[in-house]
Amino acid sequence: MAKASIITIGDELLIGQVIDTNSAWMATELNKAGIAVQRRVAVGDNRKDILDALDQEKSASEIILLTGGLGPTSDDITKPLLCEYFGGKLVLNNEVLEQIRQLFANIHRRPTTERNIKQAEVPDNCRVIMNLRGTAPGMWFEKDGRIFISMPGVPHEMKGIMEQAIPMLREKFNTEPIFHKTLVTAGIGESLLADLIAPIEESLPAYIKLAYLPRQGMVRLRLTASGSNPELEQELEKRFTMLKKGVEDYLVTDRDEPLEAVVGRLLQEKGKTICTAESCTGGYISQLITSQPGSSAYYEGSFITYSYHSKEKLLCVPHEMLEAKGAVSEEVVLFMAEGALSNLGADYVIAVSGILGPGGGTPEKPVGTVWMAIGHKGKIQAYQHQFRFDRKRNMEMTAQQALNHLRMCLLESA
Amino acid sequence: MAKASIITIGDELLIGQVIDTNSAWMATELNKAGIAVQRRVAVGDNRKDILDALDQEKSASEIILLTGGLGPTSDDITKPLLCEYFGGKLVLNNEVLEQIRQLFANIHRRPTTERNIKQAEVPDNCRVIMNLRGTAPGMWFEKDGRIFISMPGVPHEMKGIMEQAIPMLREKFNTEPIFHKTLVTAGIGESLLADLIAPIEESLPAYIKLAYLPRQGMVRLRLTASGSNPELEQELEKRFTMLKKGVEDYLVTDRDEPLEAVVGRLLQEKGKTICTAESCTGGYISQLITSQPGSSAYYEGSFITYSYHSKEKLLCVPHEMLEAKGAVSEEVVLFMAEGALSNLGADYVIAVSGILGPGGGTPEKPVGTVWMAIGHKGKIQAYQHQFRFDRKRNMEMTAQQALNHLRMCLLESA
Repeated sequence: MAKASIITIGDELLIGQVIDTNSAWMATELNKAGIAVQRRVAVGDNRKDILDALDQEKSASEIILLTGGLGPTSDDITKPLLCEYFGGKLVLNNEVLEQIRQLFANIHRRPTTERNIKQAEVPDNCRVIMNLRGTAPGMWFEKDGRIFISMPGVPHEMKGIMEQAIPMLREKFNTEPIFHKTLVTAGIGESLLADLIAPIEESLPAYIKLAYLPRQGMVRLRLTASGSNPELEQELEKRFTMLKKGVEDYLVTDRDEPLEAVVGRLLQEKGKTICTAESCTGGYISQLITSQPGSSAYYEGSFITYSYHSKEKLLCVPHEMLEAKGAVSEEVVLFMAEGALSNLGADYVIAVSGILGPGGGTPEKPVGTVWMAIGHKGKIQAYQHQFRFDRKRNMEMTAQQALNHLRMCLLESA
Repeated sequence: MAKASIITIGDELLIGQVIDTNSAWMATELNKAGIAVQRRVAVGDNRKDILDALDQEKSASEIILLTGGLGPTSDDITKPLLCEYFGGKLVLNNEVLEQIRQLFANIHRRPTTERNIKQAEVPDNCRVIMNLRGTAPGMWFEKDGRIFISMPGVPHEMKGIMEQAIPMLREKFNTEPIFHKTLVTAGIGESLLADLIAPIEESLPAYIKLAYLPRQGMVRLRLTASGSNPELEQELEKRFTMLKKGVEDYLVTDRDEPLEAVVGRLLQEKGKTICTAESCTGGYISQLITSQPGSSAYYEGSFITYSYHSKEKLLCVPHEMLEAKGAVSEEVVLFMAEGALSNLGADYVIAVSGILGPGGGTPEKPVGTVWMAIGHKGKIQAYQHQFRFDRKRNMEMTAQQALNHLRMCLLESA
């Protein structure tokens, strides 16, 4: 199988100012095309480090993908350096120049500057991959039997270039795809799960690998098959079916998808709608629900009620109850749920109120205390959870637990 | 300055199933402590690749931080491998065992299993860094004058161990901190900005570096100073002031903070409150606003109105207007804004309605058409934007533009 290294260039990656989301996307797409990412390396905008990385990755992989370091400003040193490394010289590429001019005329509505025109200079020994979304073109080099592709680091520009480069790489290396099958479990920890499926794991053929991926209180299991065996896909399906059966009591989904996709599908199948009433999550749950394409078919709307005032005004929570029980209480979330359902007329509801931290905890209700109410007209159930993480993770756990309660509720109701 | 490499271990990082957020956090914290991250490398759960990475990073950096590969399941091979690499042998550590037992008794409320007990085995030649948030301990090794620290990949566990390790590293390497100053500009592209501040950039002393960081329609500028010069901080302040003056017409903030922090501060200073009415963003804007600690002081609540029905019911948008103009129109966002303001009684409002894609576009209103209304009682202004990216980025751009309009509106009103 063809092997690739990803080199990401930019000081911002080394001081933590930017989270690298490019590499994950690239790895996913390469994988589908039968190219295994072997190593990912991030280096700074520094001559020696970039050259060392090129040399090292050249000996590790047949395909070396570089992102970043191609901007028009002087902190970007990659292009002259690539020129030197591959022994070319910079020449103005007319096709690229025309593309940049178009971009400025149509999108930015102003003429190109000196700096932008410099972006049209490319090494004379590279094959240009056009960037239709920005000014820095992709560049394909060959050296010592290795392919090097340099791209800008701006995510949607990188994606546009990769979409052209991947078919070129597939053809060049005549690749076979890699197959993954993933399922998600809830309600069982990694260790117990491992004990549960030990016999299935031990009987796997050598070309099928099992991985455990714990995340936000759930564990994903992934089977991966690669090689030229003609039975590959069939064998993978068979093993995946065994695995599914082995974990059936804990199975959330047999696809690699988030919980909001699972509940979205259930709602759609049943022809039901959902609304939310959120306090501490501030719209995070509605955000997850609406991140699914087609969610307008089953998502009605939400009330984000952060203040006492908004809980009273929008969801008819009695002022006395808020004073007596506090916003984070069983009584209040039940009222919030009822209020959202009757105001919006949806079929199902999620209501949450909690203290996610860092501040706001009390001895009786420490940080991490969350009340949630989930259900449908006539049957709304309240749950208390106690999370023990930081604000961000408490919010994620709250959303996951709420969606999982909703999933169970949808499965129970006929 | 002490140099570090981060090695991240795990197949999930190479097939794109997981986005690496650990490295950015680690880099930020190390940087503050005067340790420069030189390289970040991700490798799979593979013996040879891990050993190669250890050797390579040992020659690049004095500090090598490893995350991942320490779980209780059989896809994790790091611990035995470290044992071999550093020439130790696995022995049961009683302090770690006691910690694991406590964790299971108090949090998981069940006895430890055979697999969990194995987590308490550590190489006899490492210094243990206790993991109070999980079962896999941190391990500090010294070899050939280099420090190696191995940690689990679960973010909050890694953070707990790093918080102990950083003071140990500072002491060991007697480090001097690195200083960063960042400002954010809006309304000017990277190239024009570079022309604008060229004289300031060219006059910078060698120990102060300038970086351009474009993101979501804005450009951040970062000055970085490092070294043992006693005037360092003072000189950095001076240059930063010059830079600020140079970009004053475009300056959003002179701190490294997101737009939601800027508008949050403005609202708090003015003692005003905000509410939102969101259609296409599905709660993303309220989510950003409430991500700021202390946002309950100025955030009132939101209406997420995805359907026609919810826009009519909650925000009093006339049915005929929706039918005649469509949900994505100037008239409707203005109504949404008015409706939210009068129902919630907040001072300021953001209302948005748009077509973020991938579906839903028409010839008159293509994907990326967004209407937003921003203002306060008596003066609400509508804006139309046309974005040209994918759904996720269109959503981010919508939120950024809406928050930026709000910022301008807050600056204008007395």
